[in-house]
Amino acid sequence: MSPGRLEAFSDGVFAIAITLLVLDIHVPDPSTTADLAQQLGSQWPSYVAYGVSFLTIGIIWINHHAMVRRLRRVDHSILIWNLLLLMTVSALPFTTALMAAYLKESSGESLAAAVYSGSFLLMGVVFAGMNRHVLFERAAYLEEDTDEPTRRLILKRAVAGLIPYAIATVLAPISPYLTLAICAAVAAFYASPAASAADVQPVPPSSYDQ
Amino acid sequence: MSPGRLEAFSDGVFAIAITLLVLDIHVPDPSTTADLAQQLGSQWPSYVAYGVSFLTIGIIWINHHAMVRRLRRVDHSILIWNLLLLMTVSALPFTTALMAAYLKESSGESLAAAVYSGSFLLMGVVFAGMNRHVLFERAAYLEEDTDEPTRRLILKRAVAGLIPYAIATVLAPISPYLTLAICAAVAAFYASPAASAADVQPVPPSSYDQ
Amino acid sequence: MSPGRLEAFSDGVFAIAITLLVLDIHVPDPSTTADLAQQLGSQWPSYVAYGVSFLTIGIIWINHHAMVRRLRRVDHSILIWNLLLLMTVSALPFTTALMAAYLKESSGESLAAAVYSGSFLLMGVVFAGMNRHVLFERAAYLEEDTDEPTRRLILKRAVAGLIPYAIATVLAPISPYLTLAICAAVAAFYASPAASAADVQPVPPSSYDQ
Amino acid sequence: MSPGRLEAFSDGVFAIAITLLVLDIHVPDPSTTADLAQQLGSQWPSYVAYGVSFLTIGIIWINHHAMVRRLRRVDHSILIWNLLLLMTVSALPFTTALMAAYLKESSGESLAAAVYSGSFLLMGVVFAGMNRHVLFERAAYLEEDTDEPTRRLILKRAVAGLIPYAIATVLAPISPYLTLAICAAVAAFYASPAASAADVQPVPPSSYDQ
Repeated sequence: MSPGRLEAFSDGVFAIAITLLVLDIHVPDPSTTADLAQQLGSQWPSYVAYGVSFLTIGIIWINHHAMVRRLRRVDHSILIWNLLLLMTVSALPFTTALMAAYLKESSGESLAAAVYSGSFLLMGVVFAGMNRHVLFERAAYLEEDTDEPTRRLILKRAVAGLIPYAIATVLAPISPYLTLAICAAVAAFYASPAASAADVQPVPPSSYDQ
Repeated sequence: MSPGRLEAFSDGVFAIAITLLVLDIHVPDPSTTADLAQQLGSQWPSYVAYGVSFLTIGIIWINHHAMVRRLRRVDHSILIWNLLLLMTVSALPFTTALMAAYLKESSGESLAAAVYSGSFLLMGVVFAGMNRHVLFERAAYLEEDTDEPTRRLILKRAVAGLIPYAIATVLAPISPYLTLAICAAVAAFYASPAASAADVQPVPPSSYDQ
Repeated sequence: MSPGRLEAFSDGVFAIAITLLVLDIHVPDPSTTADLAQQLGSQWPSYVAYGVSFLTIGIIWINHHAMVRRLRRVDHSILIWNLLLLMTVSALPFTTALMAAYLKESSGESLAAAVYSGSFLLMGVVFAGMNRHVLFERAAYLEEDTDEPTRRLILKRAVAGLIPYAIATVLAPISPYLTLAICAAVAAFYASPAASAADVQPVPPSSYDQ
Repeated sequence: MSPGRLEAFSDGVFAIAITLLVLDIHVPDPSTTADLAQQLGSQWPSYVAYGVSFLTIGIIWINHHAMVRRLRRVDHSILIWNLLLLMTVSALPFTTALMAAYLKESSGESLAAAVYSGSFLLMGVVFAGMNRHVLFERAAYLEEDTDEPTRRLILKRAVAGLIPYAIATVLAPISPYLTLAICAAVAAFYASPAASAADVQPVPPSSYDQ
């Protein structure tokens, strides 16, 4: 299979998962809603969780493209790694809805938050694992002969990206709001120009538009 | 990332958001429906909101294509602007369902209408912002050297397109029907041949089919 | 816009609409289901409606491809015709669910059947209208100079395809089962090898694989 | 129609069906959930069914690509075979949800399991049928002249893949857990490196990345 076809299928899954997020924002039932403004306002965890998950999926899509772009070909092992990654991405509409439903509850809120950041962590772990597989066990498939220091740097960054999610997951029992804030901060960081310079773009800018 | 790949992903999100709109049209429960014709008839706000949102997303898709077509390459900042735009597009199935559910209610109808036209306004603001970013801060990435008057004209049109949505949002407290009518009129205008000549196609027709 | 991009977006909408059909097949609630076999059996209208709508959307997708394949370029009017066509296609998951929910009811069943075949009829009318627009008002955009007799033949076939749906809609008050049977027969006919020779393929077979 | 366009449409359906699976994992209602951990834990059949179905659809997607890649062109009969295959794939979110809902029930659990593995069996039968049609009745369309022993081998493998699903379906009355375990084992086998060497890749590795 060509990397282009792998990417087209993956982009389809990313696009669907990111768009399904909206199904978790519910329209208040008119027959039981006295004050719509208050009702919509009380749903703010849904909006925040929607925004954070949307940006996070968008960023993993950008990073996924950067990874696949380095490949000249793919084999069965890369296809299966990719399926596992997509499986974790596709689960995010569920964990996002869980977070939104329980954030303000007095029971289950810590677990929901841990599942939420934990699902980002799992996605990041599989992404780092796939990167490691591609960069070190399938180095011969790489588009251009990337030297080992560069490959180590790319992997190090993928692993470093796991740290905030691990912290957010560990802190969930203390405060689910803190967990959500950390996930939001990570998304904001990777969306910022700073991330562009340092992290998302480990290949020279000149080849970015290939 | 190539503009083509950005566009393929974006087209996926546009196509999914536009098709998810139908999930907000509900089949009346047979066990509680005495008169199906009356029930289906009473759901007319759903059909109107579906049609207006469908055309509006279709038109922003056409305009998005016109914008991306001008680009030779994209960088991180353009990718993030694009994600923000897609985030506003993906939210439309929710705001459309909200409008349909509350249009005929005696409480919450103004807010629902304001959220509906407000979501189009927000989408338009982000689209204008992305256009401004592309045309003036990333002018070097443009396919052909578009002169400044042309670039100003394109941006002026994107901003002018915001005015009816701003009016529709402001008028929501007076009548949600008026808000819906304005949004419908905007969609009808951009779908008409007049729009084709004046607004949607700021590059010469000869290059339209590239 | 290139015809290829128009088709990629349209294919996305076709693929999503066809896959959303399954959401209308419901899992019986375990807590209230004594006999699952009987419950699943009683849902047979859902399975039939699913199959008929799936094949029908698949066939309109094939025909849509045949139409777009003839185009060298598209303009704003063709984009809008295409959006209207996609709007009728995207509505089919709703009309299919309506048919499935009411087929066996003693009230509303005729209307549901009329809406079901009527939605196919509407899709066919818009498809014929788009074909007429493309073949006669935008003949200059056609890939190769199709002579007028051929263009008339293509349009005649598109219009002839409306007749069974019109009959099915008219007969809905007599029997919704008859309406469903006619729609199923149409889908089966176009899926059969006979349709391949006579109807779906108005251009010479030698250019079919372009 | 070109094989590439057939594949792009099919990939869309595969991507949507695989991503819709998550809609069957439900967020427990906060107002009635005393112990979220216990509630989420009790939903384990949903997670297992999600994982197994996700991998299975992913693997049929890989195999579908391998089949289409051999084609130089497609005709109406191949399009219809392909639609039938996609119809069985699109039904999987329903049969997966059915399995998850009934696995732990004391009534209907065998039927649900039989429907689950039966839906994989049906998909496999249609896939084998399509392979037979392509390899033997449309051999002239094949990319390179595959000799008959190779074509027989490909078909034999597609048919052999049906056996475990047939066994799983037959064993459903004995234990739905056994049925699920067999389906999981099949997915795990095809995802393993062993499958890569033996089964998924019947053409020489050197042409795998075309």
